[in-house]
Amino acid sequence: MSGIAARTRTPPTDALRDIQAPVMERLELVVREMHAIVTSDLAIIEQVSAHLLQMRGKMFRPTLTLLASAAGGTPEPRAVRVAAVIELMHLATLVHDDSVDHSVLRRGLPTVNSLFSHQVSVIMGDFLYTRAHTALVDVGDLEFLRILTGVANELTIGEMRQLASLDGMEFSEEDYFALIRSKTASLISAACETGALCGAKGYREPLRRYGELLGMAFQIADDILDYTADSAVTGKPSGLDLREHKVTLPLIAARGHLSHSERARVEELFAEEQPDDALIADVIGIVADAGGIEHARRQGERIAQEAEDALAPIPDGKVRSALTDAIFYVMDRRS
Amino acid sequence: MSGIAARTRTPPTDALRDIQAPVMERLELVVREMHAIVTSDLAIIEQVSAHLLQMRGKMFRPTLTLLASAAGGTPEPRAVRVAAVIELMHLATLVHDDSVDHSVLRRGLPTVNSLFSHQVSVIMGDFLYTRAHTALVDVGDLEFLRILTGVANELTIGEMRQLASLDGMEFSEEDYFALIRSKTASLISAACETGALCGAKGYREPLRRYGELLGMAFQIADDILDYTADSAVTGKPSGLDLREHKVTLPLIAARGHLSHSERARVEELFAEEQPDDALIADVIGIVADAGGIEHARRQGERIAQEAEDALAPIPDGKVRSALTDAIFYVMDRRS
Repeated sequence: MSGIAARTRTPPTDALRDIQAPVMERLELVVREMHAIVTSDLAIIEQVSAHLLQMRGKMFRPTLTLLASAAGGTPEPRAVRVAAVIELMHLATLVHDDSVDHSVLRRGLPTVNSLFSHQVSVIMGDFLYTRAHTALVDVGDLEFLRILTGVANELTIGEMRQLASLDGMEFSEEDYFALIRSKTASLISAACETGALCGAKGYREPLRRYGELLGMAFQIADDILDYTADSAVTGKPSGLDLREHKVTLPLIAARGHLSHSERARVEELFAEEQPDDALIADVIGIVADAGGIEHARRQGERIAQEAEDALAPIPDGKVRSALTDAIFYVMDRRS
Repeated sequence: MSGIAARTRTPPTDALRDIQAPVMERLELVVREMHAIVTSDLAIIEQVSAHLLQMRGKMFRPTLTLLASAAGGTPEPRAVRVAAVIELMHLATLVHDDSVDHSVLRRGLPTVNSLFSHQVSVIMGDFLYTRAHTALVDVGDLEFLRILTGVANELTIGEMRQLASLDGMEFSEEDYFALIRSKTASLISAACETGALCGAKGYREPLRRYGELLGMAFQIADDILDYTADSAVTGKPSGLDLREHKVTLPLIAARGHLSHSERARVEELFAEEQPDDALIADVIGIVADAGGIEHARRQGERIAQEAEDALAPIPDGKVRSALTDAIFYVMDRRS
């Protein structure tokens, strides 16, 4: 059993606090910077921004940027702005995702599209993204723009791949990995790489690679959670991906091991525009019995182990330890 | 009567051809560059791009960029890429606008939201915009990014102002000018300014200012057209702005000159969720009778004259002459 798989587990919330401990003060500055970046004279923009910054998540990506910037012991002040830009880009993506998916809730709060309107959410996503990049231009270093406009484009490609994954009994493991690289790993990887450029240039490549692997492990864990999670803990119904016809790794892995009747039942789900709870529960059971969840878990652990290996060149100490803990945190999430 | 108002008029299509004549060859390169920038492995992206590039408009903004770059006699090759980026940004904005407005047709072709889906149009707008900026980063000059990310943000603010203009008997002339500056003049101004940076740096400020005034005149003419146009020529119903509760300059100008009953009729339109054709025709008549259209026309002519004045420092010749013609073209548009 690999080191990652064997390690004793800390509850996820405490775990995040531990990971953030070395950068907690600067993380406060990132929050302030985010507010400063999105400020506007327009009442409607201020209203939506206030709502969005209130539904702010766990600041996982800015944490990685700040940690990466400290990997060499001398983090530069501009890491704070870069971290704020990355979190705002993430927020912009969520706003458009929710709009595209007609989602009603996000992190327990109403989404922009449900609280305001579909129009406001499309425009507000554009606003956040363009305002973040304006702040990034002011940093005055083309390298950040090169990385982050590339990622921004990759995220949209990820969204398109996501659409292609729908209804697809043909969606392959290779397609899946391309999807999660675009939609999740690209930004987490960039969070680490741009962080490295703010004081730890010598570790740019290992941190970029660590971030990419971490992001993939993150998404695989998320996709497994959709099959296994208790909806009372996550705050969203389980089987949501299946309900929306999203094909993820557990189903892909199970597909080769289905009986004729099991396969028919899975196909039934994809043929139903609005599959009911019983059908979803059935398919979850079928995927689990066929070993799909177990296979996905092993894949996630393999990638998590590679992420840990990527950290080898980083000097021992608080930062490397926090980055390692981030891997466990990602694998252990319950929501 | 000002020079702009008095000049004999050429039919708009011929007029555009004349304006584009000095840069026609390079304009072909811009089209090729646009294709190269949006190319993708993903079938769905290729499909949507092909559709969008087919509905490509009159290439007015790239024409301005190329003309501006030639204002000093030595246009740089990079003007072609910058012009392509600007037209793609414009296209991205149209895709999101159509999605937000649930529009069905654009330039006689089905919109992305109607032909594909709302999801695809939100994502595709993001794709075009981010891909265009990736190409701009590759030009390797922060100044272009400074101008164009600023404008991209301004465009979203314009969209928000547009939402604020709805249902607003309070929407003032000052609000209106702020709106058209953000949503139209900002990008046309940037087309001229970035063009100047590609070979005519000495004329940066006059060309920027010319572009801003031209953009404002452009939008005012567009808004007047909505009151006066023959729908058989424009391909869209007249009074569309009123139907959507968009308050523009003719109505704002008329508002102070309405009788009690006329005002009540206008308020009726804004109270109706879907005003019928008779009500719209009535309000168009009321606005015209109160001199609103005439006032808007005079404002447009004043600004057009200022645009012509802004060109004073540009050397006489083909380029300046084409830029001057562009003002007449904007004022004379019939669709």
